[in-house]
Amino acid sequence: MIDKLIKNIQEKNAPIVVGLDPMMNYIPEHIQKAAFEEYGETLKGAAEAIWVYNKGIIDATYDLIPAVKPQIAMYEQFGIEGLIAFHKTCAYAKEKGLVVIGDIKRGDIGSTSTAYAVGHLGKVKVGSKAFAGFDEDFVTVNPYLGTDGVKPFVDVCKEENKGIFVLVKTSNPSSGEFQDKLVDGRPLYELVAEKVVEWGNECMGDTYSNVGCVVGATYPEMGKVLRKLMPKTYILVPGYGAQGGKAADLVHYFNEDGLGAIVNSSRGIIAAYKQDKYASFGEANYAEASRQAVVDMIADINGALGK
Amino acid sequence: MIDKLIKNIQEKNAPIVVGLDPMMNYIPEHIQKAAFEEYGETLKGAAEAIWVYNKGIIDATYDLIPAVKPQIAMYEQFGIEGLIAFHKTCAYAKEKGLVVIGDIKRGDIGSTSTAYAVGHLGKVKVGSKAFAGFDEDFVTVNPYLGTDGVKPFVDVCKEENKGIFVLVKTSNPSSGEFQDKLVDGRPLYELVAEKVVEWGNECMGDTYSNVGCVVGATYPEMGKVLRKLMPKTYILVPGYGAQGGKAADLVHYFNEDGLGAIVNSSRGIIAAYKQDKYASFGEANYAEASRQAVVDMIADINGALGK
Repeated sequence: MIDKLIKNIQEKNAPIVVGLDPMMNYIPEHIQKAAFEEYGETLKGAAEAIWVYNKGIIDATYDLIPAVKPQIAMYEQFGIEGLIAFHKTCAYAKEKGLVVIGDIKRGDIGSTSTAYAVGHLGKVKVGSKAFAGFDEDFVTVNPYLGTDGVKPFVDVCKEENKGIFVLVKTSNPSSGEFQDKLVDGRPLYELVAEKVVEWGNECMGDTYSNVGCVVGATYPEMGKVLRKLMPKTYILVPGYGAQGGKAADLVHYFNEDGLGAIVNSSRGIIAAYKQDKYASFGEANYAEASRQAVVDMIADINGALGK
Repeated sequence: MIDKLIKNIQEKNAPIVVGLDPMMNYIPEHIQKAAFEEYGETLKGAAEAIWVYNKGIIDATYDLIPAVKPQIAMYEQFGIEGLIAFHKTCAYAKEKGLVVIGDIKRGDIGSTSTAYAVGHLGKVKVGSKAFAGFDEDFVTVNPYLGTDGVKPFVDVCKEENKGIFVLVKTSNPSSGEFQDKLVDGRPLYELVAEKVVEWGNECMGDTYSNVGCVVGATYPEMGKVLRKLMPKTYILVPGYGAQGGKAADLVHYFNEDGLGAIVNSSRGIIAAYKQDKYASFGEANYAEASRQAVVDMIADINGALGK
């Protein structure tokens, strides 16, 4: 699957991913109103609004971008109905040729991680049949439980040609609280990075591994070190834009082949119409504002990369 | 919510929780057959089988136990239908007076953790209304992202009188890979434990905090140390029985008041009928086998505690 992601990135000349993390207050009034008129102010109404909003953004941007990254929490908060919207969003993005990175940050003991891996990347057996529960292309994985919590995901990736991104250094302010702690003089995230390489060696694509990692845009010095520690690991980079990461900071997340990193923006794209810069599109044209924000983000990052 | 859990534990004299982690191969043939006849060999058929199986176990044990701990991965692997069975299981257990600990091991950056907390412990706003998505009483939380990933859960616990159990030292074989690494001469899990105390001070019940932790039964020496580091923290203890933890090992997870720990058993209870010891019940009477396994587990643990 990493090969497909790289192909998409190269064809579109866009090392970016759009984070589909819908919040109700991002969703234009007219979409909410229509959904609530049909289903009432209910979880189903909210889920319908999210789905219509997402579809608009996908339709307006899919020709420019290689991938989307729906954050499952933003759907899960609306219970079953929200998760139906998550599932529909993933399926629709795939129909449009996009790679779907499910930002699910799961991770548990072995047999439980197997269940998550099967549910999100593989197929679950029911009697004599097998079904895909959610069917993303990649998911994000939390490494706190160690190898036996991550390996079941790698095993399913091998069987199904899927991929994962393991959290190494997250973008949030307190990520350092545990991740930066020094172990024999080296930060914990470097030890996790070494394990990522080990897990990834088992599951290589043509040039990069199907086991990628997450390193936040907000810690560029660490990104530089981690890039070198994990030469064949694709880095999923959250934290660009709204969280404070700048394109110039991200150059060192890439390898000399111009590959090796994919930068996420969520609210900067999907709620672009709320920024002064894109306000002229108006709320009704939120999807066109998102499209322009994608164009600008690609130019910003490719500019920094000298492409 | 910790006060309600303690009340349930005391009333039933049973510091245990039944892990509702259904696997298809645990579910008796007659239940699978009936579900597949009604819904076919589909995700819905599997979900129906899980629900009927769970209901049988709850009906046969609810008067003996304080709580259940459904592991969401075992439902999530069946997609939306599986999660509907999870939701129904949680609601039914609550109807029967049980405390529901959602074993979800979520954790993300701040705004995303808020969404998880709202979806599982709180209420999400939809227009002028608010709805509970999954509505567990407690959930398990992964601390790898640090304070700003955990605090949103604590905030919702305060608002809604709910609780969490933060992973400190997990029961799996490779949990030590990162959790045991020495930071200034002390294992990382102790640093996490100190943070658990800090987070928990903000959200106290009468004698214990609504912020508990997870420490595996498989590491009793560490449990002994952690008990002392976190005197007012309830410890959720997985790993008893099938994973190898013994009652005698668990004594030091409890405080002198006889409280402070709740021991989980999943497959040892829910698939008891598959053990030689309970085979005489037969597959048709799987729920009665589970009841007997609960009786035996309570006696085993209370025996070790000298109760």
